Amino acid sequence: MKKMVRVFAPATVANVACGFDILGFAVEQPGDEVVLRTTGGAGVTIRSITGDNGRLPVNPKENTAGVAVEAFCRHLQIETGIEMELHKKMPLGSGLGSSAASGAAAVFAANVLFDRPLSNEQLIPFVLQSEKAACGTAHADNAAPALLGGFVLIRGYHPLDVVKIPTPEQLYCTIVHPQIEIRTQDARNILKKDLQLKDAITQWGNIAGLVAGLMKPDYELIRRSMQDVVIEPVRSLLIPAFNEVKSAALAAGVLGCSISGSGPSIFALSRTHDIAQAAGLAMKKAFESISIENEIYVSKINQEGPRILEEF
Amino acid sequence: MKKMVRVFAPATVANVACGFDILGFAVEQPGDEVVLRTTGGAGVTIRSITGDNGRLPVNPKENTAGVAVEAFCRHLQIETGIEMELHKKMPLGSGLGSSAASGAAAVFAANVLFDRPLSNEQLIPFVLQSEKAACGTAHADNAAPALLGGFVLIRGYHPLDVVKIPTPEQLYCTIVHPQIEIRTQDARNILKKDLQLKDAITQWGNIAGLVAGLMKPDYELIRRSMQDVVIEPVRSLLIPAFNEVKSAALAAGVLGCSISGSGPSIFALSRTHDIAQAAGLAMKKAFESISIENEIYVSKINQEGPRILEEF
Repeated sequence: MKKMVRVFAPATVANVACGFDILGFAVEQPGDEVVLRTTGGAGVTIRSITGDNGRLPVNPKENTAGVAVEAFCRHLQIETGIEMELHKKMPLGSGLGSSAASGAAAVFAANVLFDRPLSNEQLIPFVLQSEKAACGTAHADNAAPALLGGFVLIRGYHPLDVVKIPTPEQLYCTIVHPQIEIRTQDARNILKKDLQLKDAITQWGNIAGLVAGLMKPDYELIRRSMQDVVIEPVRSLLIPAFNEVKSAALAAGVLGCSISGSGPSIFALSRTHDIAQAAGLAMKKAFESISIENEIYVSKINQEGPRILEEF
Repeated sequence: MKKMVRVFAPATVANVACGFDILGFAVEQPGDEVVLRTTGGAGVTIRSITGDNGRLPVNPKENTAGVAVEAFCRHLQIETGIEMELHKKMPLGSGLGSSAASGAAAVFAANVLFDRPLSNEQLIPFVLQSEKAACGTAHADNAAPALLGGFVLIRGYHPLDVVKIPTPEQLYCTIVHPQIEIRTQDARNILKKDLQLKDAITQWGNIAGLVAGLMKPDYELIRRSMQDVVIEPVRSLLIPAFNEVKSAALAAGVLGCSISGSGPSIFALSRTHDIAQAAGLAMKKAFESISIENEIYVSKINQEGPRILEEF
C-alpha cells in the first residue's frame, strides 16, 4: 500500500464520426488530475476540488470520482481511509468525457495506491457506475478509452465487450471547445429513434472502413470513412457555426472532423502535428468570427490511458 | 494475345451476418469455369453453356458472362473475336453470387487472353455492369470478392470504394444450399425501409468487431461479432427450418452462421476444417429432417480470386 498517488487521466472523444455509441479514443491533452492519500480514518473523503468553479459536489456519494473509488473499495473490501483531491484541468459538459476522466483518474489512482490488484480493463465497471451516477446513463465509449488509451470499440453492452483497436503511431487530434453548453440529455433527445436502412448501410460501411483504416493503417481510408450521415446532421444543429468550423478544419487538410461525444466540442484527426495545429487555428477563427470564445487543444492520440505523475 | 484460357472464379458469400450490402468473401468451392478462345471473327459468341439446365441465355447481350466480356472489350477497344464456353459448377439463384462468379470468370479470362492490361480491381466495374443486366441492381459485395478473393469491404458506392480486409490463414467456410428458390427481388422486398437506432448501433458495433476480429485475428471476437439483428430475423422467415439449421451449425462449434447473400444458402465460418465438416453434416441433417434436399460445400476462404486452370 502506498501513501500518496497523483495521476493524470485523459479526455476522450466518443462517437468518432461514424461510431455512435461504440467507438472512442483518448487524447494526450486535456485531462484531469487526481491525488489520493491513505489516511488513518475510514471511507472516502474529498478534501478539495479545483478548476470546476464550485460546480462539482464534494460529497463523495454525489461526485463521479468519489463514486468510482467507493465502488472500487467496496468490490475489494478495502476499508482503509482515502482522501482525494480532484483537479479539473478540462472543461465540464464539453463533450470530452469530463466525468469519465475524473472517474478514470480516481479509480486508476486507487488501484495504484493498493498495488494494482486489478487491470485497467477491470476498472471500467467502476467508472461506468460513476458515469451512471453523474449522467443517468452508462456509456462506455468515454470510460473505456480513458482507462485503456488509444481507440476502443465497445462492440456490445450485454455483456460489455471492449476491444482495443490498434492505432497508427502518427495520428493527431485537434479539439475546439466553444464556450457554450449542451446538456447530454438534450443531445440525446434531439435524435430520432429510427433511421432509414440506406443510411444505416452507409454508416456501417464507414465504421468498418474506419476500423480497417486505423488497423492497416491507411490514412486515405480513414479520411474517406470519417463521415456521419446519421447523428452529426441532427446534432450539429445545436452547435452554432458547426458547418463553418468543420469546413475550416477540412480546408486545413485534416482527415476528418465531427462532433466530440454529444458536443459542443468539435474534434478533427490529422496525420501530422502541423496540420492539426493549423486546423486548430482555423477552427478557432471560425468560432471567433461569430464571437464564440473557445479553447483549442492539439495532441497525439494517448496510447496508454492514465499515467502516474507521482507516488510514494 | 493468347489463343485459349480456361479459368475458375469462386462463389462468394455476401452480407456475412452483420455486413449487409457492404461485406463479402470468396470460397474455394464451389465456383464457375469459363473457357475463352480468340477467333478469326469479330465480337463475342457463346458456344456452349453446361450445368445450367438450359436456364441461361446464349445471346451474349443477355448473358452475365457475355455482357461482362463485351463491356471489357468495348472499354479496351478490342475487336478480336472471342468464343466462350461457360461451365456452371454451382447452383443458380442460390445466394452464392452465381452471376458474379460467371461474370468474374469471363472478364478475368478475357484480361488474361489479352495479356493482363488491367488489374483485378479494375475489372470490377465490368462485372457490376453484368450484375446489373442480370439482377437489375449492381451490388459489389459478390463481384468484388469474386475478383479479389478474401474478405472485401464495399465502404461506399459513390464512388465505389473497395477495401480488401486481411483474413486469417485458418478460416473455413461451410455452405449448405437447400433446393428451394428465393428470388433476390423478394428477398429485397421483405426488408423494411427503416430500422430502430438501437438496432443500427448493435449492428455497427458488430461489423466493427468483425473487421477487427478478422484483422487481428481474434477468433473469439469474430464469434461474438457474427450477429445480425436487422436482416437475418426478417429474411430467415423465407427459409424453412433456418433456426434449426443455424442451431445445428452453432452446436457443431462454428464461429457464426447466417444467410449467404439473399439466401436460400446458409453459410458458417469455422476455425478448423474438422468443425466446418461436422457443421456441414449437421446442417444437412437438419434440412433433411424436413425433407429438403441440399448440397454441402466445405472449403477454405479463397484468398486470390479467380485462377488460371489452362492457357496457351
